[in-house]
Amino acid sequence: MENLLVRAARGERTERPPVWLMRQAGRHIPEYREIRDAYSFLEAIKTPEVAAEITLLPWEYYRPDGLVMFSDILTVLEPLGFDYRIESGVGPVVENPVSGPDDVDREPGDVAEEISYVGELLDRLDERVGDETALIGFAGGPFTLASYAVAGEPSRTHLPLRKLRARHPEAFRTLLAAFADVVREYLQFQIDHGADVVQLFDTYAATLSPADYREFLLPLHRRILADLDAPSIVFVRRMNGRLEQLEATGADVIGLDWTVEIGQARERLGDRPVQGNLDPSYLFGDPSFVRERTREVIEAAGPRGHILNLGHGVDKDTPVESVEAFVDTAKAFSWD
Amino acid sequence: MENLLVRAARGERTERPPVWLMRQAGRHIPEYREIRDAYSFLEAIKTPEVAAEITLLPWEYYRPDGLVMFSDILTVLEPLGFDYRIESGVGPVVENPVSGPDDVDREPGDVAEEISYVGELLDRLDERVGDETALIGFAGGPFTLASYAVAGEPSRTHLPLRKLRARHPEAFRTLLAAFADVVREYLQFQIDHGADVVQLFDTYAATLSPADYREFLLPLHRRILADLDAPSIVFVRRMNGRLEQLEATGADVIGLDWTVEIGQARERLGDRPVQGNLDPSYLFGDPSFVRERTREVIEAAGPRGHILNLGHGVDKDTPVESVEAFVDTAKAFSWD
Repeated sequence: MENLLVRAARGERTERPPVWLMRQAGRHIPEYREIRDAYSFLEAIKTPEVAAEITLLPWEYYRPDGLVMFSDILTVLEPLGFDYRIESGVGPVVENPVSGPDDVDREPGDVAEEISYVGELLDRLDERVGDETALIGFAGGPFTLASYAVAGEPSRTHLPLRKLRARHPEAFRTLLAAFADVVREYLQFQIDHGADVVQLFDTYAATLSPADYREFLLPLHRRILADLDAPSIVFVRRMNGRLEQLEATGADVIGLDWTVEIGQARERLGDRPVQGNLDPSYLFGDPSFVRERTREVIEAAGPRGHILNLGHGVDKDTPVESVEAFVDTAKAFSWD
Repeated sequence: MENLLVRAARGERTERPPVWLMRQAGRHIPEYREIRDAYSFLEAIKTPEVAAEITLLPWEYYRPDGLVMFSDILTVLEPLGFDYRIESGVGPVVENPVSGPDDVDREPGDVAEEISYVGELLDRLDERVGDETALIGFAGGPFTLASYAVAGEPSRTHLPLRKLRARHPEAFRTLLAAFADVVREYLQFQIDHGADVVQLFDTYAATLSPADYREFLLPLHRRILADLDAPSIVFVRRMNGRLEQLEATGADVIGLDWTVEIGQARERLGDRPVQGNLDPSYLFGDPSFVRERTREVIEAAGPRGHILNLGHGVDKDTPVESVEAFVDTAKAFSWD
């Protein structure tokens, strides 16, 4: 039988919801912090042996139904022609950001070559991870990547990119389209190396007005997600009022942040599988609170096509016992 | 005849939409920057003569239909027992933040005394501003204020406050309720000093899950907005999927950010007046682009109960000629 998470992603009724957490292989795990004493973040993601070890840490703690490769949504910037580093206290800083409206169509590099370390990581994990566990790949989406490429650093408002849209709409269109082609290639590359499911994180795309999303980004999301050889999940934050726009992307699974009621999302999305959506801050409550809230999400989502997750990544200070309570609630649940 | 903005706020059909901009009296105006060379932000808002001069600057440029007092959403923190300063590169820093779950019910001070400078500012403006221009007051809402009071500084995720909800829900409830009572008093105080309309900025409240908003915050928004002696506007960002929750606050006008289509919002909200909602980044396009996008908003909103505004505050680098194009488009429009 195919694994639980893939079955849910295909919309099947499952005996219980499969469960994983965005950013599960991260700073909330003590051994992660030890490994990071020896390797910088970029060293860790670019060294397949180290990245594999980190990817597997949550397995030791929680045995989730999916293991998400330890990587970065921004790795794909490099074949797109943008080098970046992580600056302490700032975040990702792009060394050679977009210099103007004429610099939006750089010659793309070779994904298989420039991100070969992700292929090696997935190959390695594919050997280690049993069939009952889904291997999850991912990439940043065009808007989110372009926000870094244009601003050159994290931007709370994404205004540098949004100004490009207002001043130079054709340059904005060209930039996003160039990014989309490479993102698509990168996700298929991950699938070719063993990813069972891939998630597109265009986290900030809801910063576009609905009309702009429809005009500029939706066709690209569709193009990226069409005809991948594995189920796909789309995740955009703050789209609580625009789930129909996410539905139109063609993703197999609609990722939900915690600002929408999953039961209501179900009503709006019909049979479309969903992923989510516990408020990550609830993991700071005691385990009984976590269990109760988690059961509410499971019950509101129903038995068909639901992947249990948080509504956003695990916070770095989250207690391990809360994540345990979250995963265990799913694993102990039964729809039968 | 009552002024245009108040009539729209009451849901009347108007000959054209009244127009103002959130943060219109701010850094995008050259004279503002000159005044701020001589006064810090807090000095400027606490000196009625200076604050009045700043409030009136947009009048010289644009003749909007509403003048919003130059002040800060956080001033009401002081009668709530929290002192704050503005730190360069950080933003508001609370000197004496909430120290723990037992520190959520400080004895409130006297609004009329501790924020007397706002009363004096409004008195002064009331004398200067003609009847055809609405004087607009405002305050931060309980969630937004509490985020600063608990985190002690700006928080992108509001996680310190959200952790309080998960760990100490009764302390969270008490804190918000204490804030709500003083906010209500403060808004009525503004009305007593001549504000024609007041806006409640609980900007970050959508960070609460829908269930938590309903349980903890909605009753307080209702309490704040009930029985004020002037029309009220509620503004919460990122509520595009939860307009019905804003409707339930009882505010006379529902403020819309730019992530919802105003025409769709109209369908969902029936006759309830709305304010908004041009994407502020559009003001970085050329004036013809601004005019075209602005007309689309006006036409989608329709002739009844619409106050034209941006979907968020004016960015500090916005060109004056774009704001002119925005205001002029409203003023030249005719529904007749």
